[in-house]
Amino acid sequence: MKNLFSILFLILFSLGAQAKDGYELWLDYQPISNPQLRNEVSSLFSGVYFFGQNPTFDIVKKELAISGLKLVNQDPVFRTERLNPTKLWLGTREQLSQVLGLQQQVEIQKLDEDGYWRGPIDFQGNTYYAIIGNKPVGVLYGVFDWLKSIQTETFNLKSEKSDYPKVKLRMLNHWDNLDRTVERGYAGFSIWDWHKLPGYIDPRYIEYARANASLGINAVSLTNVNANARILTTDFMKKAKVLADLFRPYGIKVFLTARFSAPMEIGGLKTADPLDPEVISFWKKKTDEMYSFIPDFGGFLVKANSEGQPGPHEYKRTHAEGANMLADALAPHGGILIWRAFVYSHEIDEDRHKQANLEFVPLDGKFRDNVIIQVKNGAIDFQPREPFHPLFGAVKNTNLGMEFQITQEYLGQATQLVYLAPMWKEVLDTKTYSPSSNSTVAGIVDGSDSNQKLTLMAGVSNIGTDRNWTGHLMAQSNWFAFGRLAWDPYLSSEEIASEWIKMTFGQKPDSNAKIKEIMLDSHEAAVNYMTPLGLHHIMGRSHHYGPGPWVEGGRADWTSLYYHRADSLGIGFDRTDSGSNALAQYAPEIANSWSDPTQIPEKYLLWFHHLPWDYRMKSGNTLWNEIALHYDQGVKSARKMKSTWDSLEGQIDPERFSHISQLLAIQVQEAEWWRNACLLYFQTFSNRPFPSEIEKPEGDLEYYKSLDFPFAPGIRPRW
Amino acid sequence: MKNLFSILFLILFSLGAQAKDGYELWLDYQPISNPQLRNEVSSLFSGVYFFGQNPTFDIVKKELAISGLKLVNQDPVFRTERLNPTKLWLGTREQLSQVLGLQQQVEIQKLDEDGYWRGPIDFQGNTYYAIIGNKPVGVLYGVFDWLKSIQTETFNLKSEKSDYPKVKLRMLNHWDNLDRTVERGYAGFSIWDWHKLPGYIDPRYIEYARANASLGINAVSLTNVNANARILTTDFMKKAKVLADLFRPYGIKVFLTARFSAPMEIGGLKTADPLDPEVISFWKKKTDEMYSFIPDFGGFLVKANSEGQPGPHEYKRTHAEGANMLADALAPHGGILIWRAFVYSHEIDEDRHKQANLEFVPLDGKFRDNVIIQVKNGAIDFQPREPFHPLFGAVKNTNLGMEFQITQEYLGQATQLVYLAPMWKEVLDTKTYSPSSNSTVAGIVDGSDSNQKLTLMAGVSNIGTDRNWTGHLMAQSNWFAFGRLAWDPYLSSEEIASEWIKMTFGQKPDSNAKIKEIMLDSHEAAVNYMTPLGLHHIMGRSHHYGPGPWVEGGRADWTSLYYHRADSLGIGFDRTDSGSNALAQYAPEIANSWSDPTQIPEKYLLWFHHLPWDYRMKSGNTLWNEIALHYDQGVKSARKMKSTWDSLEGQIDPERFSHISQLLAIQVQEAEWWRNACLLYFQTFSNRPFPSEIEKPEGDLEYYKSLDFPFAPGIRPRW
Repeated sequence: MKNLFSILFLILFSLGAQAKDGYELWLDYQPISNPQLRNEVSSLFSGVYFFGQNPTFDIVKKELAISGLKLVNQDPVFRTERLNPTKLWLGTREQLSQVLGLQQQVEIQKLDEDGYWRGPIDFQGNTYYAIIGNKPVGVLYGVFDWLKSIQTETFNLKSEKSDYPKVKLRMLNHWDNLDRTVERGYAGFSIWDWHKLPGYIDPRYIEYARANASLGINAVSLTNVNANARILTTDFMKKAKVLADLFRPYGIKVFLTARFSAPMEIGGLKTADPLDPEVISFWKKKTDEMYSFIPDFGGFLVKANSEGQPGPHEYKRTHAEGANMLADALAPHGGILIWRAFVYSHEIDEDRHKQANLEFVPLDGKFRDNVIIQVKNGAIDFQPREPFHPLFGAVKNTNLGMEFQITQEYLGQATQLVYLAPMWKEVLDTKTYSPSSNSTVAGIVDGSDSNQKLTLMAGVSNIGTDRNWTGHLMAQSNWFAFGRLAWDPYLSSEEIASEWIKMTFGQKPDSNAKIKEIMLDSHEAAVNYMTPLGLHHIMGRSHHYGPGPWVEGGRADWTSLYYHRADSLGIGFDRTDSGSNALAQYAPEIANSWSDPTQIPEKYLLWFHHLPWDYRMKSGNTLWNEIALHYDQGVKSARKMKSTWDSLEGQIDPERFSHISQLLAIQVQEAEWWRNACLLYFQTFSNRPFPSEIEKPEGDLEYYKSLDFPFAPGIRPRW
Repeated sequence: MKNLFSILFLILFSLGAQAKDGYELWLDYQPISNPQLRNEVSSLFSGVYFFGQNPTFDIVKKELAISGLKLVNQDPVFRTERLNPTKLWLGTREQLSQVLGLQQQVEIQKLDEDGYWRGPIDFQGNTYYAIIGNKPVGVLYGVFDWLKSIQTETFNLKSEKSDYPKVKLRMLNHWDNLDRTVERGYAGFSIWDWHKLPGYIDPRYIEYARANASLGINAVSLTNVNANARILTTDFMKKAKVLADLFRPYGIKVFLTARFSAPMEIGGLKTADPLDPEVISFWKKKTDEMYSFIPDFGGFLVKANSEGQPGPHEYKRTHAEGANMLADALAPHGGILIWRAFVYSHEIDEDRHKQANLEFVPLDGKFRDNVIIQVKNGAIDFQPREPFHPLFGAVKNTNLGMEFQITQEYLGQATQLVYLAPMWKEVLDTKTYSPSSNSTVAGIVDGSDSNQKLTLMAGVSNIGTDRNWTGHLMAQSNWFAFGRLAWDPYLSSEEIASEWIKMTFGQKPDSNAKIKEIMLDSHEAAVNYMTPLGLHHIMGRSHHYGPGPWVEGGRADWTSLYYHRADSLGIGFDRTDSGSNALAQYAPEIANSWSDPTQIPEKYLLWFHHLPWDYRMKSGNTLWNEIALHYDQGVKSARKMKSTWDSLEGQIDPERFSHISQLLAIQVQEAEWWRNACLLYFQTFSNRPFPSEIEKPEGDLEYYKSLDFPFAPGIRPRW
């Protein structure tokens, strides 16, 4: 009760005032306090000149109007004549060609179609600050980068900066159903109000586009990969068209998910066989119709023959035959077909880990040029920590895209602060040793270590109708970090965290350092209290909320027992050659070292090895004690995150302080729940006592097993 | 496309600024421009003295802090000593007894426990402005009324005002499911985030309580009447407790829906027979447990033996036996049992209209004192216009409560502006002629025309997670109007509209007059384009979105054919003695006059009469032409609403202007859709041409019948 009233007090305190509810995201544009910077920026806003006109520049103007008012309390002055006293120049390389040297033009041209250059230009005795792109959207990206440099107080009027995205398609995947539920959504419901479209435009659509453009995200798939064919009907195309029209000036292309059985469900055909002429004709017509509404439609995203979704295997056709049929319908319009590698079925292998490679490696070279195979970062399913997916490096003539999950399905969902950039970076930075000894996952994804031109990084969105977009305000950092890494996979997670914190909470070095510490500790904390040392997929059944190491029955590879394989002798999944031999799917350099439990990084140990409870770890502890201590360390880390945050009271506005403080309190409880439930459960196999430093669990194993969450978010509830 | 860009422009224009998104509801507290009023109010805020301390006064202080800052840009000065220069006095009658005359104390005491008095008090040579309640919540109500008088510029420092609620329980019914879907919800999803409770308190819970308290709403049922027994488990009680604790200082009691079969579903019993000792014991223990968490728990709301919900009839027990068993469990704690009269089954009568009376009149006098029978305003189901429910006036020894539907299930849902106060007033003002010749529905509901002491007005909530709370911003007026009428059923809908408009849009006489005109025209417009002249229940199947006069098959009294009974001879439901004789359930004064098609108000004509297509109306038109012209008039009215609103461009902030303008455009389309679909359909029976002034429909009947809305909001979608 005491706690309730202190929270209530904080909330009451923030009512009525201009509460910081997180809606502004990282585009809050707090007033600049540094006087020199303020003067410089103010001066630039006092004379803005565009070298041309187009819908994207209208967006840029609006962004300058919003930011000018907020940063320096000044409406930008837009000049219609360059000869007027102008300060800030904006335009494409071509538009500025008369004021640029040839050398500079060549250098800007090298920046790719989405790149930008910004910096001082001397022209006829005056110096201007220019932001130049090869296309209008490059100008937009340059402006957002410039505004970021102001927000983070790194802007230097005298220095140049140029940048370009390393990956061609930087894409959000929404797993949003047409009834506005969101599969694995923890931030309310879908922001797409299909029922009110095309007649009603929610202002949020525009804010969404702004936020994505500010990161360089240039593609969105609006609908769930567990697709509904209705999205391909004319009525829904008219709705999608409105969104595409709105997003176009922001440089964002719309994709939709295509249900493989759509020819039967909405086309009246008796088959969806990809080689059937009527099916081919159905998709061609559907695609042509789509382009009649959306001339720059991005393409289709397909989940086929996976978890019950229909696909070409029903007709004894390969993934390549299925994907190519759709790709051929899209090709005349310049569309792209994205086919997910997350495919598995009972029949193919006893280890789900191996299935994507078993299915896709034999098809290498058989996909059309406009097909991308979208591969999850790991071979199982977005676990708190996974070794990289062995398909990266295993094919040479197939476009591979990366699929990360921004929404925290297995990582604390709505109630936990877990900054995901370190997890993604761990995968991106890993050496694959194939195609060459220096190859990394990032290098394959961005094409620098592979010969693919069509590159993709996709993130499964964590966006919903919650006022702060992402449910947990701190989860905004994951949307941000995904966008930044899709633009440049070589950025560090520290760097990205620093940017986001400054843009979100303003310039407060002391509290920002503590927020950064919390963020950077959070992923390892979650791994420790959920699935340390390579344990995986031991969450509650179906909703994946909280611990469920006891989950058994039903489809084997959807149970926890399948993955942890605990028994009286030990624990872990043997994927060496004495077991499933999934390790053989990696390059020999990896397979060899990871096959040896003393060489494999211990964080992956139980992912690949089944080891005795008394196995001696590098620390000197037995495996059982080491597992227990990792779980306990996770709890301690969560508590530290909470106490660090609470030390910021008074330094953070009360609404955001209370929001995050409350959620961190839940996170501590959930960490304790995870530790207690998992250790009590695994103890039934290990038959060993807890190390003495571990607190006695509050409940017994039966209590933890009895907990039931039929209305957990992100799933269709059990009634 | 042109339209899209003009909307986009409006939206862009409102980004970044302090957009008026409707979140503040009618508590926006716009700055006062009238200088005299400003000075007076400012002076009162400069010396505020509370005669006591309690959690409700803390809420009052907060409300003064919010409103002072916004209305007169002044933080209120709270004095701890009365002798300091204080101006505004607040407290209960008892607390102020030393400064009040005896006569005045007596008069305030008469105002009932929720009443308040406010006005000038002379004391020891000085004049103070005092707001006094019999209880702390009366002070809260008095303060909200005082703030309203400032917002509407009707405050007079020198005059007194006292008021008290005419109805004891002023209640919202949320039809919110535990998975956050809302049955018949058109404003997003449930604001109750059960998953994050009890750990996380959404600031919105407080705003919700504030808004309700500002209207005098003092009870809320949190869960759907199609109930889930899980809400009665200990885990969920702990969640509900948090909400009850938050709402308590606002004078709001929490009710929950009780699923009659809960003893079997969560109690492990084999029966839910209300006379079974184990069942009785289950409910007693459950209720005791509930009160251990929520000592002032309001009670249960039950839908039983209706539309498939379980109830006492399964055990051959009466509604009274079912209700009394629950009432007995609640009585020791002071709890109330609300039992819905919306019960019907195939067996009881061929006319659903008659069923509630057939079931409840024989039980008159058999219900416990702490039972209220909650009766919908009409006998069918929240139709655009219904004659009052014949149960009002038909029982003498049963507590009857009124159930209105604020959410617009049958009245345009998310996309139509329909101000409902005129519809509710039409029912409340109707004379029932029983128990006495002067009785009205309002008089029965508030107890002045009946001998019931426990009175109730309930409204099915239109609140959801949409930022503006109600989906359509103008639908906030329905929440507001419901609250005002529950407080005082004798207010006029014009008066309520005026208050709401001023509090929502500020003091702008010109535009406010136009907004009021739109609101007051809107209900009759909707009746005309949906169900004129007594037609009813001809909406689309299940979702009730748009026209579905052709709906047939399945349960008869869920089809349109059952209700309109159109055939080659005529149209309408014969409820006279030549038909179902439902009219006999009304007092003879009504039954006699309404049995005569020339005497019944024509707005109810086809509700009670089946008449030939060529029947001559008072206008001189044939019935067929009159129907057609009413539909057309509805379209014309919708168009006028739209053009009137659009004339306000520039006078309303761009965000709200665009929001409402877009939705009115949809409303016009939907009005046309209704007219065209219904007239084309009924024409297949009438075989008569449309009157010449009617526009040719865009589509044919087959087109309108083909429209399909599997993802319409407010229902469980068909996949």
